[in-house]
Amino acid sequence: MVELILNRGAERRLKRGHLWIYSNEVDTKRSPLKGIDPGSQCQVLDSQGKPLGTALVNPSQLICGRLVSRTIDFSAADVGERIQTAYQLRQRYFEHPSYRLIYGDSDWLPGLVVDRFGDYLVVQTSNWGMERYQQAIVDKLVALVQPRGILLRNDHQGRSVEDMPLVKETVYGDVPEMAAFEENGVPLLAPVHQGQKTGWFYDHRENRRLLNRWVNGKRVLDLFSYAGGWGVQALANGASSTVCVDASQQALDWCAVNAEHNKVSEKLTTVQGKALEVLKSMVADKERFDAIVLDPPAFIKRRKDHKAGLAAYHHINELAMRLLKRDGLLVSASCSMHLESDELLDCVRGAAHRLGRRASILASGGQGADHPVHPAIPETNYLKAHFAHVG
Amino acid sequence: MVELILNRGAERRLKRGHLWIYSNEVDTKRSPLKGIDPGSQCQVLDSQGKPLGTALVNPSQLICGRLVSRTIDFSAADVGERIQTAYQLRQRYFEHPSYRLIYGDSDWLPGLVVDRFGDYLVVQTSNWGMERYQQAIVDKLVALVQPRGILLRNDHQGRSVEDMPLVKETVYGDVPEMAAFEENGVPLLAPVHQGQKTGWFYDHRENRRLLNRWVNGKRVLDLFSYAGGWGVQALANGASSTVCVDASQQALDWCAVNAEHNKVSEKLTTVQGKALEVLKSMVADKERFDAIVLDPPAFIKRRKDHKAGLAAYHHINELAMRLLKRDGLLVSASCSMHLESDELLDCVRGAAHRLGRRASILASGGQGADHPVHPAIPETNYLKAHFAHVG
Repeated sequence: MVELILNRGAERRLKRGHLWIYSNEVDTKRSPLKGIDPGSQCQVLDSQGKPLGTALVNPSQLICGRLVSRTIDFSAADVGERIQTAYQLRQRYFEHPSYRLIYGDSDWLPGLVVDRFGDYLVVQTSNWGMERYQQAIVDKLVALVQPRGILLRNDHQGRSVEDMPLVKETVYGDVPEMAAFEENGVPLLAPVHQGQKTGWFYDHRENRRLLNRWVNGKRVLDLFSYAGGWGVQALANGASSTVCVDASQQALDWCAVNAEHNKVSEKLTTVQGKALEVLKSMVADKERFDAIVLDPPAFIKRRKDHKAGLAAYHHINELAMRLLKRDGLLVSASCSMHLESDELLDCVRGAAHRLGRRASILASGGQGADHPVHPAIPETNYLKAHFAHVG
Repeated sequence: MVELILNRGAERRLKRGHLWIYSNEVDTKRSPLKGIDPGSQCQVLDSQGKPLGTALVNPSQLICGRLVSRTIDFSAADVGERIQTAYQLRQRYFEHPSYRLIYGDSDWLPGLVVDRFGDYLVVQTSNWGMERYQQAIVDKLVALVQPRGILLRNDHQGRSVEDMPLVKETVYGDVPEMAAFEENGVPLLAPVHQGQKTGWFYDHRENRRLLNRWVNGKRVLDLFSYAGGWGVQALANGASSTVCVDASQQALDWCAVNAEHNKVSEKLTTVQGKALEVLKSMVADKERFDAIVLDPPAFIKRRKDHKAGLAAYHHINELAMRLLKRDGLLVSASCSMHLESDELLDCVRGAAHRLGRRASILASGGQGADHPVHPAIPETNYLKAHFAHVG
C-alpha cells in the first residue's frame, strides 16, 4: 500500500479522533501526493514513521485523506459493518423509518450519505474512496433495510469539486417521484428525484418539533421554505396561516403538495421570489407575522466568505425581525459550518438592539439524532437554530 | 442621584446590551465607590460624561453595578411591569403553571428569581438593589398570579457574599412542605422549604423531556439525583428501573416520595453516598446501565477553578462511561457557567477515546424557555447537556 507521511505534529488531531488529513499536513517530499490514484487507500504514518491507520485519498483535494481505519485493513466488509451499526443506531432512537440513515464521518463512513423515506433510500457519495464501494453499499442496504427502491443522487455539486461524474439513477427497485415519510408525526412527501440534495432536510427535525409546540393560532412566515418543512408542519400543528417564500416555483409547488397532503391547503400562501426582495416589499407593505422562520442556505460556504456572509446574516435577521409582531417568535437558523452559534445569536441581538426591541432566547437547537455529532470532528456540527421571543 | 463614571471604553459592553458593571471598570478617582449605600441607584456615565442609564449598586462587589434602566428613572412600577412581561412570556409558551417565572437579568430584573409550582411561588433575591423592592415584588405577584402562598427562600449562600441576611419566610398565604407541580407531563412534588435553592431545578426540563423519549425498558443510573428530576421522570416514562445516587439522604427520601407519587416505587433504588465513591464501587462490582445521567453540581464556581474543575469533569465522565453498557446512552450535563459546551463535549470525547469506545452525540441541549438567554449577556447561558450514544 502507498504510504502517506505526515509533517511533524500533524498527527495530533488524528490521535484525538479526527479523521481528516489536509494536503498541507503531508510531507510531500517523502511521500508525494502526485500520482496517487483518487480513491485509493494509503497507509498513514506520522513523521517518525509510526503507523496511524488507513486513509482514502484524493491527492487533488484540500482534505486529501480521510482515515477509515486505525489499522491497515479496510474493506467492503468494514463498510457493511458500519452501515449496520448506523442502522442499529437509528432503529434504537427512531420510532418511524424517516431519517438520515448514514451521516458521513459521524458514522465512520466519510463521503457517504443515505436518507431513508420509509421504503425508499436515497444515496449520495462525495469522494472517490467511497465511490469504489458503491455496489457493496447498495447490497448491504438491500440486505438490511429491504427497501422497495434505492435512488442514487450523485448529481450534487460537491462531486464536481472532486471531479466526479454527476449521476442520478435508480440502482435498485423503483423509486416514486414523491416519497412518503413523516416528520414529528406529520405525513409528508419528499421530491427525491427533483429536489435539493436527497430531497429533504431532516437535520432540522427537532427544531421544527419545538416550533410545532408554539404555532397554534399563529400567522407564520417561512422564508427559504423549500418544500414546506417548517411552514406546512406548522399548519398541521394548528397555525392559522403560513406564507412560504422561495425563489423556486417548483419548491413552492411541493409546499402546496404537502399542504394538500395534510388538508391545510386553504391556509397556505406561497410567494415566489428572492427572500431579500420579498422581505423588503413586505416591510414596505407593513406586513406582520406572529412567527417567522429564517432558515437560509449557507451564506458562508468557505472560510474566506466569513466576513461577507456574517454581514448577510446580520442584514437578513434585521429585515425579518422588522416583520415580526410585538411578542412574536423569530426562529433564526444557519447551516453554515463556518458560522459559530454565538455569531448567529449576535445577529439576533444586534437586530433587536438596532430596532429597539427586547429579544429573549427561548431555545437554541442543533441537528437531530440522525445527524450525530462526532465529538472529535467539530465540522460534523454545523446546524444551529435560535428561538427568539421578541418584545 | 450619585454618579458612577466609567473608565474609557468600559461602556462598550453596556452599549451592546449587557447590564453588568465590574468594579474595575469604574473611574473611582472621579466617582469613588466607597461610601455608596448598598442597593442604592446610581446614574452611570461614560468617561466623556454621557449618561448610560441607572444601575443598582453594591460598592463592595466585583459586579458592583447592574443596569436597570437606560434612562434615569427606575421605580417599583418598573419592577412591576417587568414582572408582568415575564409572566406573559411564560403564559405564552407554557401550558402548565410549572416554571421559572422570573429569571434575573434575562427578565431585566437582576438579582430576582421566582419559581412557580402551580399555586405556590418561591422567591429569591440576591442583591441589595432588588431587596429594596421586596414588598412591591410580592404585591405584584399576588395581583398577577393570585397564588395561595409565597415563600421567600433568601437563605442561599449567594446572599452571604453580598452580606445580606439569610432568611426563609412565608410572606403570603400558606406554602406546604411539598409543592405539587408537573414537568413534561409527570406529576411531581418539590421540597420548597427544605430543598436546594427554590426546591427544584426547572432548567433541565427540555433535556429531561428528550431523555424521557429514550428510556422505555432501560436500566437508568441518575447521579447527583437530588429529588429525582431525571430518574423518577424516566421511571414514569417506562424505564425498567432507576438507581438514584445522592450524598444527601434527604434528597433520596424526596426521590422516594416522587416515585411513590408516580406509583413506580418498586422500580426505584436509592444509594446514599458521594458520587465518585459510589461510581468507583459500582465499577469494581461491574455494574452496568443502559442510560446514565451525570448532572453534577457546578465543579467550576469561579473562573480560577477552571483547570481543576475541568479535570474533575473529565474524570467523572470517564468513570460514568465505564458503567455504561455497549450501545448505552450517557447524558453528560454541566451547570458551570465557566465551562464551555465544547469543553464538556471534549470530556465525553476523551472518555470514549481512553476507553476505546465510539461516542456519537445525538443532541446537545440547554436551558428551557423559562430560563431565557439574554442575547447580550452570555452569563445567562450556563446549562449544557450532551446526549452521547456510546458503542
